[in-house]
Amino acid sequence: MAETDVTQVNAALSNPRADIEALEALERTLFSLGYAIDEIGSLGSVIDPPKATEERGEALAELERARTLALCAPEVAGVLGRLEQCPELLSETQRAQVRVLSRDRDALVGVPADELAAFKRLTVEAEDVWARAKSASDWSSFAPYLDRLVDARRRMAECKDPDRDPYDVWLDDFEHGSDRAFYDTFFSQVKDCVVPLLADCVASRNQPSRACVEGTFDEERQWALARDLVRLEGLDEQALWVGRTEHPFTGGPSTGFVLIASHVYPDNLLSNVFSMLHEGGHALYEQGVDAAYRFTSLKGGTSMGMHEAQSRFFENLIGRSEAFAAPLLETLAKHFPGRLSRVTPRQLYLAENCAEPGLIRTEADELTYPLHIIVRYEIEQLLFSGEATAADVPRLWAEKYDSYLGVRVPDNARGALQDVHWAGGDFGYFPTYALGSAFGAQLKAAMVAQGVDFEGACASGDLAPIRAWLRDRIWRWGRSKDSFELLREACGEVFSARYYTDYLTEKFSAIYRL
Amino acid sequence: MAETDVTQVNAALSNPRADIEALEALERTLFSLGYAIDEIGSLGSVIDPPKATEERGEALAELERARTLALCAPEVAGVLGRLEQCPELLSETQRAQVRVLSRDRDALVGVPADELAAFKRLTVEAEDVWARAKSASDWSSFAPYLDRLVDARRRMAECKDPDRDPYDVWLDDFEHGSDRAFYDTFFSQVKDCVVPLLADCVASRNQPSRACVEGTFDEERQWALARDLVRLEGLDEQALWVGRTEHPFTGGPSTGFVLIASHVYPDNLLSNVFSMLHEGGHALYEQGVDAAYRFTSLKGGTSMGMHEAQSRFFENLIGRSEAFAAPLLETLAKHFPGRLSRVTPRQLYLAENCAEPGLIRTEADELTYPLHIIVRYEIEQLLFSGEATAADVPRLWAEKYDSYLGVRVPDNARGALQDVHWAGGDFGYFPTYALGSAFGAQLKAAMVAQGVDFEGACASGDLAPIRAWLRDRIWRWGRSKDSFELLREACGEVFSARYYTDYLTEKFSAIYRL
Repeated sequence: MAETDVTQVNAALSNPRADIEALEALERTLFSLGYAIDEIGSLGSVIDPPKATEERGEALAELERARTLALCAPEVAGVLGRLEQCPELLSETQRAQVRVLSRDRDALVGVPADELAAFKRLTVEAEDVWARAKSASDWSSFAPYLDRLVDARRRMAECKDPDRDPYDVWLDDFEHGSDRAFYDTFFSQVKDCVVPLLADCVASRNQPSRACVEGTFDEERQWALARDLVRLEGLDEQALWVGRTEHPFTGGPSTGFVLIASHVYPDNLLSNVFSMLHEGGHALYEQGVDAAYRFTSLKGGTSMGMHEAQSRFFENLIGRSEAFAAPLLETLAKHFPGRLSRVTPRQLYLAENCAEPGLIRTEADELTYPLHIIVRYEIEQLLFSGEATAADVPRLWAEKYDSYLGVRVPDNARGALQDVHWAGGDFGYFPTYALGSAFGAQLKAAMVAQGVDFEGACASGDLAPIRAWLRDRIWRWGRSKDSFELLREACGEVFSARYYTDYLTEKFSAIYRL
Repeated sequence: MAETDVTQVNAALSNPRADIEALEALERTLFSLGYAIDEIGSLGSVIDPPKATEERGEALAELERARTLALCAPEVAGVLGRLEQCPELLSETQRAQVRVLSRDRDALVGVPADELAAFKRLTVEAEDVWARAKSASDWSSFAPYLDRLVDARRRMAECKDPDRDPYDVWLDDFEHGSDRAFYDTFFSQVKDCVVPLLADCVASRNQPSRACVEGTFDEERQWALARDLVRLEGLDEQALWVGRTEHPFTGGPSTGFVLIASHVYPDNLLSNVFSMLHEGGHALYEQGVDAAYRFTSLKGGTSMGMHEAQSRFFENLIGRSEAFAAPLLETLAKHFPGRLSRVTPRQLYLAENCAEPGLIRTEADELTYPLHIIVRYEIEQLLFSGEATAADVPRLWAEKYDSYLGVRVPDNARGALQDVHWAGGDFGYFPTYALGSAFGAQLKAAMVAQGVDFEGACASGDLAPIRAWLRDRIWRWGRSKDSFELLREACGEVFSARYYTDYLTEKFSAIYRL
């Protein structure tokens, strides 16, 4: 692979056509390695048997190393640099490729390949330890890994940009254009809105009831329902695989092969429903990227926050809206006719929107959700600044859950061990979840202002007009534009958290009659 | 990847330690690319959605190209050549690695890359034409492709070894140490035994009956049974994934992740049972390779014949033995208690061993199976020697099926179009299927002579003593020894077809009371 590249790169010194060929050869290499890494990584937790772990880890580390070497080869800097100088010779797609590849390369060249490979191995091990620690609710076995992971990420951030705060490096990595200053402002707006709003909801005499969807629901029927939910969302089933896993996620190596892994709980029907609608939103984004980008670095979603905007759009803005309750109820009742035949859409809507302080992020309702994120954001900041180590996390976790949500954390399984993200070395990732909700609220306001009959589409169960707007403004662009740029172009104004806080205030004030 | 290799290789010119490091770097590269190719390739037909095809094909082609480039890099010849000259500096494993890598490399470097690429394209086209030709039972559309494929394979054999008969080159490629002279002798012994034996069976007044296992069996229960069958065989379920596919196969990227894909037919319980036992034998071999070889070219089975020896050992020598009928029946009856409660082990044994001349290789019983192979072997020889062309094949096929099996071939779909192998350019592959059965019979005789209580193990359902013997003599060696060498060391004598023909004669004479 690299050999051919080198030949082409050398020839390119005096020949822009050869530079373009080198760009295409690089993209083919990156595509094939990325395809392998995504498929092996995504399926790892879904179908691989337990003993696959070590060899999968080695293979992933090595493939990752090869990808890094291909992108960081010294000749590539020359190719990308020369192509940047002659934009008139490039198509719009090629210009975006050069821009994205240069940034991807800059993010890597700083970190030594050995460090990167060692980090990958550490995360494979840590994820294994985390899974066992979680089922034993044993913080102490995972804690040393958390400290090592934070250290590794701090060292890597140092390599990438020694002049920048390490946590800022990772915040920006997950969401280009963001940093602590941005999130501090954003989260303080959210906290100022949600903490008092939640207190009012909890104190209200008008409590919505979940009774109409309580009880046990057959698991295999819930899986059949899950398939119908992705159909209702409008996913292309010819490019989708649905598997079973503990912690739901969407992945997959290509626009033609998107993978949703989810769970069902016999005693929690709505958990399945909203997990599938959420993951389906991610999958719609992946499937919706322009097919012309399939074999390039422009495929896939542009950022974590914009991805989360799509998933929460389908989970909350559509999925938990009053208008959508009717078609959703119809789908549920098809699989559980006896149980749901006397439920009304209004009852379902209220059951979906009980704002209740709880322990588990992924089970959180729409209102309390951002508070779970704020806890994690604040703890990550402390870990990165050195003000706290892994040993302090259970205490910090308990204090913050008490203070923001008013709940007592009974054990680490339902506390700081609940999420896999840290075991995967993903710090700075959680904030994008809350940001995504805010992106989504702003996108919804814009599409309504631009004439999309949002309520009508939800009420009819035919979401095509909503998908068309999102595909045109967001999905099809893949990574060719950054999230804040896409948002600005789609909405005609810069990001504002106001749409999100207004939406939450209006919705929950109505439900709780505040 | 290649960059690091090149650096290491250059440093190695005056330093054997650097050569060893280059060997290890090469093995890591080959391991990771092989892992990716095996996982993507194996799962492709099992779980990928339809629209994954194009991107998967691109990714696989690119990964394959990277593997070829890594192994065929000019520097690698120097590394391997120098290491061959200083065996005293190498461990036994490293010496085997050098030997196997040199041979793998030689198999690739001889053929010009253009020829190889043209051949790949031809097979992709030919497989497509074959699939349509088979469903239309239309030999004439496939015939020109068969002639072109034979020509291409003849030219490629010429490149690899101009002094050798081209068909011998491919026989040796699939089974190192074999050639036409070897197979001519082997198949004439088999034919001399099986043709008259089959005629006697067909003419016998004592015909075993399949009635006790006929009828329909619930598919999901058959899948639960399939899991119990691999448990009964003693597979490590912590290193196994079982999926569903049209054409059963065993694959998987590592000793820690072996994959069996199989089918169930509601109206053919035994097809499921013996497919699973067969694939389970392949999987036991893959899982049983020495863990020290995991990240090297020595992992996996040593040859097609030796792999087939393991699968047929568990399918036939154990699975269709009278002793094993009791534990097998117990397992079947657990899943189908109503249906099988009155069946006796003897009835099951007879039902499993009806020798019936048929048209379809993959549905053949243990006795007629090698005759299907002999037909294909003899026709391949004629095509390669130029004594026949594709146009002659239907006539030859009909004559040989009539002469060896006594059946009339009604159409090409059930004749020369039934198998995909030729469309894939695989000539010289079929003979290994029959050779595997003969390897297995000799291994069984040796283990009994060496004191393994084969019948006792089968009767008890605890196959551990049999697995231990096979693991020690065959499985753990991976690719570090060739099949004929392994067999000789395991059995204390060279290969002999006598064990196979004696076994068939004894078994079927008893069943049919000849």
